[in-house]
Amino acid sequence: MPIDINCDLAEYDDAFLTGKEEEILDYVTSINIACGYHAGHHTLMHQTVRSAIRKNVHIGAHPGYPDREGFGRRNMAFSAAEIYDMMVYQIGALQAFVQIEKGMLHHIKPHGALYNQCVNDREKASAVVDAVYDLNPQLILYCLSGSQIVEIARGKGLQVYEEVFSDRRYNDDGTLVDRQEPNALIQTEQEMLIHVKGILTANEVLSVQSKKIKVAAQTLCIHGDGPRALDYAKKIAALRQQL
Amino acid sequence: MPIDINCDLAEYDDAFLTGKEEEILDYVTSINIACGYHAGHHTLMHQTVRSAIRKNVHIGAHPGYPDREGFGRRNMAFSAAEIYDMMVYQIGALQAFVQIEKGMLHHIKPHGALYNQCVNDREKASAVVDAVYDLNPQLILYCLSGSQIVEIARGKGLQVYEEVFSDRRYNDDGTLVDRQEPNALIQTEQEMLIHVKGILTANEVLSVQSKKIKVAAQTLCIHGDGPRALDYAKKIAALRQQL
Amino acid sequence: MPIDINCDLAEYDDAFLTGKEEEILDYVTSINIACGYHAGHHTLMHQTVRSAIRKNVHIGAHPGYPDREGFGRRNMAFSAAEIYDMMVYQIGALQAFVQIEKGMLHHIKPHGALYNQCVNDREKASAVVDAVYDLNPQLILYCLSGSQIVEIARGKGLQVYEEVFSDRRYNDDGTLVDRQEPNALIQTEQEMLIHVKGILTANEVLSVQSKKIKVAAQTLCIHGDGPRALDYAKKIAALRQQL
Amino acid sequence: MPIDINCDLAEYDDAFLTGKEEEILDYVTSINIACGYHAGHHTLMHQTVRSAIRKNVHIGAHPGYPDREGFGRRNMAFSAAEIYDMMVYQIGALQAFVQIEKGMLHHIKPHGALYNQCVNDREKASAVVDAVYDLNPQLILYCLSGSQIVEIARGKGLQVYEEVFSDRRYNDDGTLVDRQEPNALIQTEQEMLIHVKGILTANEVLSVQSKKIKVAAQTLCIHGDGPRALDYAKKIAALRQQL
Repeated sequence: MPIDINCDLAEYDDAFLTGKEEEILDYVTSINIACGYHAGHHTLMHQTVRSAIRKNVHIGAHPGYPDREGFGRRNMAFSAAEIYDMMVYQIGALQAFVQIEKGMLHHIKPHGALYNQCVNDREKASAVVDAVYDLNPQLILYCLSGSQIVEIARGKGLQVYEEVFSDRRYNDDGTLVDRQEPNALIQTEQEMLIHVKGILTANEVLSVQSKKIKVAAQTLCIHGDGPRALDYAKKIAALRQQL
Repeated sequence: MPIDINCDLAEYDDAFLTGKEEEILDYVTSINIACGYHAGHHTLMHQTVRSAIRKNVHIGAHPGYPDREGFGRRNMAFSAAEIYDMMVYQIGALQAFVQIEKGMLHHIKPHGALYNQCVNDREKASAVVDAVYDLNPQLILYCLSGSQIVEIARGKGLQVYEEVFSDRRYNDDGTLVDRQEPNALIQTEQEMLIHVKGILTANEVLSVQSKKIKVAAQTLCIHGDGPRALDYAKKIAALRQQL
Repeated sequence: MPIDINCDLAEYDDAFLTGKEEEILDYVTSINIACGYHAGHHTLMHQTVRSAIRKNVHIGAHPGYPDREGFGRRNMAFSAAEIYDMMVYQIGALQAFVQIEKGMLHHIKPHGALYNQCVNDREKASAVVDAVYDLNPQLILYCLSGSQIVEIARGKGLQVYEEVFSDRRYNDDGTLVDRQEPNALIQTEQEMLIHVKGILTANEVLSVQSKKIKVAAQTLCIHGDGPRALDYAKKIAALRQQL
Repeated sequence: MPIDINCDLAEYDDAFLTGKEEEILDYVTSINIACGYHAGHHTLMHQTVRSAIRKNVHIGAHPGYPDREGFGRRNMAFSAAEIYDMMVYQIGALQAFVQIEKGMLHHIKPHGALYNQCVNDREKASAVVDAVYDLNPQLILYCLSGSQIVEIARGKGLQVYEEVFSDRRYNDDGTLVDRQEPNALIQTEQEMLIHVKGILTANEVLSVQSKKIKVAAQTLCIHGDGPRALDYAKKIAALRQQL
């Protein structure tokens, strides 16, 4: 099966209104829709669901922490029970739009601090897994490749897509270089394309210590925003087609 | 069929934590759960759904305008499309909690300014009706007795419960006395009980001009908050039992 | 005195982080800083105040309605007393940043629906004027040129800058073409520069019915966002220099 | 100097509207006004400032984290710079109301998670101290008695009131029993009055291990909400009068 290419959408009014988001749907196979907590709102959700169905792109919910100012990237001290509840709320809201538009909800990808906390925190990861499973055990959970939540989700019986990133650098042990580090992000197009090609053709990335490492990758995350997002999306889609 | 008795819940953390809301469930037949826009949040929603199922009380969504400071009572200039979307979002979020707790969503009652704007504004009323119908045509819509939205909803094929209030005074033409008026609210227990008895036994209220008028009433709204809420709920439930 | 050129800033995290907002400060003489209700937040406010002081640009508060999703452009039913209070709150918050950075607050420009409602609604306009005056009678109020609030503010003793827009079309009577109309906005650079030149050299605009009309203009509003904002700002600043 | 008695106000619309908050002003010497982040809003702030001035009660700002749902009690990962900015914003907003009502801002008391994080976190404590000092070095900072921020504030040159609580139990080392512990709160009136009497007459509390310990106490915090708040406030005020 060729790799899934996903991106986060419905986070910015402007990106939607200018049609930039609409265009990117031609170059990805699945999208993650912000659900109104860290970003987005009912109208963006509805319109993006409609576009995704028209363009035959898989629809996922992208639930996050209720912190718009921090864009859901700031750690907050939520209990597992609260995380469970905020997952159910946000997925339920998106599910309703998918239902009225007669589409299918395909997957769930937690956002920002919630995504990252699930990598190491068993209790929070279990809350996320349980919420998805209780709502619909057919949903696929997108998780950081190689992280603890992958096993928790599979143990529960959920299907998982392990996720890699088109513009993040990796450590020797397969973990991501921390976003605080200056070299966390791949900056040039050339390096990004080499990096993505390695993933697509060999499930392999070059670590910051120049070591070849294997990564499990059922889905590749690309950016839907930024000035060159559309251009990059096209080039990555082209690479994938050539395989 | 004996009249349905509904009240709004899950709007205040304190009311829930003190168990006051739990108690009131023994004296009503249906509740309207705030969905996080004008009040409430995911955790209150989940816990209230659980309590309602345990106590066998009908569960309704109580969607409102996204204005916590104004408690959803302030008019805001939303388009019909925006109202449709915010209905779908909020009902979807509540529906998810009902689903994981294996309950059934019974009805929808719009809140505050949204409820009132549907009385006279055909376009907004249609947006509300369409959202409910598109999500689930089996849902019952709670509307102000005798108002325009009643006919719109029935025309669409939705079941409607016409609603009367235990503590509001009525004009000769069957409309509610405006909340801005000093005599809008019934203040004494004695008058409230006479008023409710008239509704329960004869579908009749005494207008402010002391005229007996007929009102359609499939559901009676009582308050779930305030210092005497529980006491009033008990007395109204007792009145209903005697019929 | 050459005309003041103002633009709205501190509304978007991205615009600030990319340095785009910093650059525009070289081409305007005053800015209006969003105060956290319709957009912006404490950190953007602080950093923008600091930049403006460094670049010697006049600092204004840009208070709006508490409606981030609607970007403060949606009418909301606030009383005059509530408008007064939300003006005081937002101006006070900005004033504190100006004070710790040892700058001076120069003016107040209401935002969006609040700005527009002051054009015709005497009561709301008076609330705005009173709040500014009570806080500091030296502050200058930026108002739509020729509108009712101009007289109210002057009657109270406030200094007013009547405002015109670089990219809006005008009716024969000097009012702005409604934003809902398809021709409300000037779309081409060429037309925009002719329009601005007319204002700068002759206090004159060409109405949509091709009539020359006089406008009072102590300040000209340009956009701080959009892909060509910086380019337009430079060209308008150059025009102004030539006078 | 007799001890200051403070309580938190302007956090709930209901408490204000019912006049309960107004009454409590007769029994305290200072209040802490919520500033719109964890609770409260512009109108409550204005009305409470007005009442406090009329009743000659010292006015303090009660800034907190921007987390209404968690009532500012939830830890959030803010940097010191962000904490500085959110202090300036909230204090500035309250200061504006005090200014238009021709009162004086007397003190600052951080709320909830912010208050608690300052006890042990030097960097956050310094951000709080710096914000207060930069805005107005005459302001008094209310801090947990014996905590690290007391020294930081005094080192900077700020006046500090060390704070004790009327309904919290203490450990042998003078720290508060953690709120998560079952015995954190004093539950009976009798015990509360003995506890307060010890503080008022001897700067002494009985620890949970029944040891007499000394506490510095320039201010005593009592609750402004809860069903028995007013009654307790009266009794504590009476105790203080007898000294």
